[in-house]
Amino acid sequence: MHPNRIGAVYAGRYGIVGALTEDLIDTSLETDEDIAALRHTPSGAFGSCRYKLKGIEENRAEYERLLEVFKAHDIGYFFYNGGGDSQDTSKKIAEFSREAGYPLACIGIPKTVDNDLPATDNCPGFGSVAKYVAVSIREAGFDVASMAKTSTKVFVMEVMGRHTGWIAASSGLAQTRPREAPHLILFPEVTFDEEDFIKQVEACVQKYAYCAIVASEGLKSPSGQFVAESGSRDAFGHAQLGGVAPIVAQMIKNRLGYKYHWAVSDYLQRAARHIASSTDVEQAYALGRAAVEMALAGRNAIMSTIIRVSDDPYVWEIGSVGLAEVANVEKKMPKDFITDDGYGITDACRRYLGPLIQGEDYPPYRDGLPNYVTLKNKAVLRKLATTFEPA
Amino acid sequence: MHPNRIGAVYAGRYGIVGALTEDLIDTSLETDEDIAALRHTPSGAFGSCRYKLKGIEENRAEYERLLEVFKAHDIGYFFYNGGGDSQDTSKKIAEFSREAGYPLACIGIPKTVDNDLPATDNCPGFGSVAKYVAVSIREAGFDVASMAKTSTKVFVMEVMGRHTGWIAASSGLAQTRPREAPHLILFPEVTFDEEDFIKQVEACVQKYAYCAIVASEGLKSPSGQFVAESGSRDAFGHAQLGGVAPIVAQMIKNRLGYKYHWAVSDYLQRAARHIASSTDVEQAYALGRAAVEMALAGRNAIMSTIIRVSDDPYVWEIGSVGLAEVANVEKKMPKDFITDDGYGITDACRRYLGPLIQGEDYPPYRDGLPNYVTLKNKAVLRKLATTFEPA
Repeated sequence: MHPNRIGAVYAGRYGIVGALTEDLIDTSLETDEDIAALRHTPSGAFGSCRYKLKGIEENRAEYERLLEVFKAHDIGYFFYNGGGDSQDTSKKIAEFSREAGYPLACIGIPKTVDNDLPATDNCPGFGSVAKYVAVSIREAGFDVASMAKTSTKVFVMEVMGRHTGWIAASSGLAQTRPREAPHLILFPEVTFDEEDFIKQVEACVQKYAYCAIVASEGLKSPSGQFVAESGSRDAFGHAQLGGVAPIVAQMIKNRLGYKYHWAVSDYLQRAARHIASSTDVEQAYALGRAAVEMALAGRNAIMSTIIRVSDDPYVWEIGSVGLAEVANVEKKMPKDFITDDGYGITDACRRYLGPLIQGEDYPPYRDGLPNYVTLKNKAVLRKLATTFEPA
Repeated sequence: MHPNRIGAVYAGRYGIVGALTEDLIDTSLETDEDIAALRHTPSGAFGSCRYKLKGIEENRAEYERLLEVFKAHDIGYFFYNGGGDSQDTSKKIAEFSREAGYPLACIGIPKTVDNDLPATDNCPGFGSVAKYVAVSIREAGFDVASMAKTSTKVFVMEVMGRHTGWIAASSGLAQTRPREAPHLILFPEVTFDEEDFIKQVEACVQKYAYCAIVASEGLKSPSGQFVAESGSRDAFGHAQLGGVAPIVAQMIKNRLGYKYHWAVSDYLQRAARHIASSTDVEQAYALGRAAVEMALAGRNAIMSTIIRVSDDPYVWEIGSVGLAEVANVEKKMPKDFITDDGYGITDACRRYLGPLIQGEDYPPYRDGLPNYVTLKNKAVLRKLATTFEPA
C-alpha cells in the first residue's frame, strides 16, 4: 500500500458483486481516450448491481471475503458511488475493516437519479434527468397543444420516483406560464384524489384546450397502494402490466371522454446523456475527484457532498459527511416545494431545482449518433484459490 | 391577386379547419425573430388537425365554403403540409378550384414522421424521429447492459408506426456490433411469431446477458390483430390500456422469467426538437421554399419532393410530383430492408436511413431549457357573414 498515492485502479465488475467474486477490472489497460470518454457516456461502464450487503452479524462471511480480496490485491482505498444502499454498503465495509484491523479508506460518492441522499445539495445524475424530463414535457406539450382542437387533448408522461417526487417536480420547470405544460403534476407525496384530479383536468381542458400531466411512478391511492399496481391483470392474473401513465390516461378517458396519449420514459430518462445538464456533469466529476483527495488525505467513512452556498447565482462547493449520517436516510421533498393544491411546484422548489439543469454538455457525435465508449474491461488475474457466490 | 408575388401570408388555425371556419392567422403580425424561431420549435405553430375533406361529391358545401373564404381574403396560393391525408386534401381543393374556375395554386409540402409518402426520398420530421429513436435505444441499451448481471435483463421500447416500420427500422442504426442495442426489432411488416421471438430473446440474453428490443406500435399477431390491442381490459372492459411494449415485456417475463423494463416514447419522439437531425431541418426548409417558388412559377397541384442523387456522400435535390400520384399512396418499406430473420435491418436499409440522421441542429437554450416560441397567432378580421361548422 502506498500511503500518499494510488497505484493501480481496479473496478469491481458489476459493483460490489465483482469485489466479492474477485472479478476485478484493470482500468490501466484502457486507453486515456476511452477513460476520458466516460465523461460523455451514460450508465455504469464497469457494470452496476442491485445488491445490498446484509448486516455484518448476518453475513460475516461476505465481509471476510471482501477483505480477503482486498488484501490479495493490495487494495487500500475503496470508493463506491451510488444511492442510499451503496452508501450503506460503504459504511458497513468501513466498520468491518476497522474491526478487523485492516487499513482501508472507504469513501462514498453520491450518485442517484432519485436525488434522495441527505447532506448533499443534490445527487449526480439527478440534474440531467431533471433536464430531460423538463425538456420532454415542454416538447410534448407543444405537440398536444397544436393537435388539441380535433385530436388528442390529454397527455400523460410517467417519470421515475418510487418514493420521492424530485423527478416529477423537475418537470415543473418547463412551465413558465399557466397555459404551458405541465399543467398537473402527480407526486408520490400527495395521495391521489381521483375526483379532484378529474375536476382539475376538465377545468384545464376547458381553459387551455389541452392538459399535459406528469405522473410519478410512485403515485399512491388513498388505500396506500401504488396506482400503477391498481390496473388490470393479464390473462394469467399478473398485475405488472401497468405503469401509472396508462391508468391515469384511461381514467380520464372513462370519466371525461377526452382523447389521450401517454408516454413512459423509463430508462430513457436516466440514460439520456445526449441532453445532460453541464452543471450535473461538472458536479459529478468534482465529487469523484474530491473523494480521491479525501482518501489520500487519510479520511475514512465519509461521503463527498455538494454544499449550496447560494441559489442565484448558483454557487456551490465540496463538503463531506460521515457515512453513518447518510446510510438509510431518505431525503424527502420539503412540503413547501409543492403548491397548496398539490399539483404544482412552488417558487422555493424552482429556486432549488433551477440551477441543477443549467448548461448543455453535448456528447461528440459520429454518423449522426452519440459516440459513446464501451471499455475493454479486462479482468485482473485472480489470486485467490477460492471462489465465492454472493448470497 | 398578385401573379408574381405574395402579399399577406395567412395561416389556417388548426390547418384546414381554420380555412373552413374563416379562422385565419395573420402571420405578418408576428416579429421576424419569432418567425425565425419556428425553425427550432417543435410541432405546428398555427395548430394542426386530424380532418380529412370528404370527396367533392359527398360534401360539396365544404369546398364551396373554402373558395368563399379564399375569395373573401384574396387568397391565390394554397400551401398545405402533412402526410397522405393532407396531400389528398390539397389535391381535392386543386380539383375543385379548377372546376369552379377559381385561380388557385395548390401546392403540397411533405411532412410526416411516418415517412410513408411516395415520390419523395423521405418526409420532413422523419429524420429527426429516426435520430431520437436511435439515440434513445443506444442510451437505454448502455443502461440495461450495465444492470443486467443482477437486475433488468430485458428492455422493450415502443415506437410509432401504425402501418409501416420506418421508425422502428431507424432504431437499428444504433447497432454497430451484434452485442449492441437494439438486438431485436419488431416490425409491423413482419407477423409476430411468439414462439420464435421468445427463442430469440433467450438466445440473446444467454449470449450478451441482456436483450434490448424495439417494438413498433403496429406489430400484428398472426390473426391480423394489433398486439397492442390483445392485452388486458380494465374494470370497465375497455381495451385501450395497452401499448405493445408492456405486453411484449410481460410475455417475456411469463415465458422466461427475466426482469424487464419498458418505455413508450409516444409524442416525445416526434416532438424531440432538442435532438433534431440537421439534415432533416435543412430539407424541411428547402421543401417549403421550393413550394413557394413553384407556386410563383405558376405551377399547380404538385408536391415538392426530395430526390436522392447518391447515398454516400448523401446528395439530394428538390423535385416535384403531381398530387394525384401522391394522394392515398402509402410508401411501404422495401422487403430487402428487413433481414431474413425478420428482426433487423439490412445494409440496404442502413444506406437509405443513415444519411437522414446526420448532423445536430440544437435549439437555443434559456434557463437550461430549449427556448421554443409560441406565436401570438392573431386572427384576421372575418369578412364573411356566415359561419361554418366542419362535418
